Amino acid sequence: MTSSPCAPHSTSLPPLSPTARTTPTRGRIRQVVERERLHEVLREALVAHLGFVRDAGTGDASTVRPVVLPVAIAVDPEGPDEGGTLYVHGSVAAGWAESVIGQEVCVSVTLLDGLVAARSGFHHSMNYRSAVVLGTARRVDDEEERLRALAAVVDHMVPGRSATLRPVSRKELAATLVLAVPLAEASLKVRAGGPVDDEADVASGVWGGHVPIRLVAGEAVPAADADGPVPDDVAARIAALR
Amino acid sequence: MTSSPCAPHSTSLPPLSPTARTTPTRGRIRQVVERERLHEVLREALVAHLGFVRDAGTGDASTVRPVVLPVAIAVDPEGPDEGGTLYVHGSVAAGWAESVIGQEVCVSVTLLDGLVAARSGFHHSMNYRSAVVLGTARRVDDEEERLRALAAVVDHMVPGRSATLRPVSRKELAATLVLAVPLAEASLKVRAGGPVDDEADVASGVWGGHVPIRLVAGEAVPAADADGPVPDDVAARIAALR
Repeated sequence: MTSSPCAPHSTSLPPLSPTARTTPTRGRIRQVVERERLHEVLREALVAHLGFVRDAGTGDASTVRPVVLPVAIAVDPEGPDEGGTLYVHGSVAAGWAESVIGQEVCVSVTLLDGLVAARSGFHHSMNYRSAVVLGTARRVDDEEERLRALAAVVDHMVPGRSATLRPVSRKELAATLVLAVPLAEASLKVRAGGPVDDEADVASGVWGGHVPIRLVAGEAVPAADADGPVPDDVAARIAALR
Repeated sequence: MTSSPCAPHSTSLPPLSPTARTTPTRGRIRQVVERERLHEVLREALVAHLGFVRDAGTGDASTVRPVVLPVAIAVDPEGPDEGGTLYVHGSVAAGWAESVIGQEVCVSVTLLDGLVAARSGFHHSMNYRSAVVLGTARRVDDEEERLRALAAVVDHMVPGRSATLRPVSRKELAATLVLAVPLAEASLKVRAGGPVDDEADVASGVWGGHVPIRLVAGEAVPAADADGPVPDDVAARIAALR
């Protein structure tokens, strides 16, 4: 389970400084420390997986449980938190968002880039870019920051879309909880390229290689009550996923 | 953030019986209880996100931390655990796999099906199938079950592939830890279709609709030292992702 390291490139931001918790115990060659690469991966991801500990505040370790939920994200490298800010949001009614305020969370973002068909089962693998962010969730209370974060979540999905929409209403704002996670403690692992097989297995003549995988958008499906052509923002989003 | 429910279909397996922990607190209409649908989603997913609590065994709730890692999976609806078995595996050297033996884990599988561009930021959403499995991780010690699980992980990625490969070696087996999670406590949520907008926003004339998204495979890339044509198993995998 080795990999082709990605070529380092010049950087103007301070590199990621992995802590013991964000240092992979295997496959170190896959670790990427350029902060821009982390931002790229977070920006490309449409879905993240947010992990938190249920009942972490009870003081009873025997009752704690891990929970992992899919969430939409937005990234602001210039955000007010150390290392920049990752935003997630949740419904006030759903309960989970409120329960993680001030708690440690783990946000895992995985972009699948390929399947690796090796000559042995053991060396089968996948190509991926995997970002893991650890940090304490902060509730965003400042109204200006909340509005900016919610617009960023929409623009993360369809760049430029928020500017074409009416402002968020009071009622919507009251129903929505915005959480910020610092990008200070994070790691990025990348695997790329073909299989790394044992010599004897290569000699056996079994085929080995990899299959690139990517997310692709289909044609826009207008709502039954929609008028007019697909707007430029949606069309550009589709074009970027072709 | 409402959705089009999926049409129920006839079932021969007992339905999912959500517990309080696996009952969504919002969007109940999206909940799917047919066990076959859960199996379908798990079988289609190439990557799952495994959540566990680091230091859960210390007895000190103040030091527990959530961790979420991307993992490959295999599904055996006839597996020995209650409700069937979900398999994951990890390197003995990596440490995390050993640390979760006997611990509660959360396995989250998300298939992204589309972006939903509503007439307001608030109603923007995604189409998805989201499975969440909660359970205690069991270390698979029985050798026959371990070998079957490891073959299933390979075949999950490229169906039929394991039968074309040499057997797993003693050394490889010793380096690999196989974990089983029961499929007894699980939930499945599905969102499909277009936006659900407020009437006043539809009247505003802003375009609304959705964009289907899916994973697509490219052409196989043979390893530099590979001979011969792309085998049928890999070709079929690519064809299934077109």
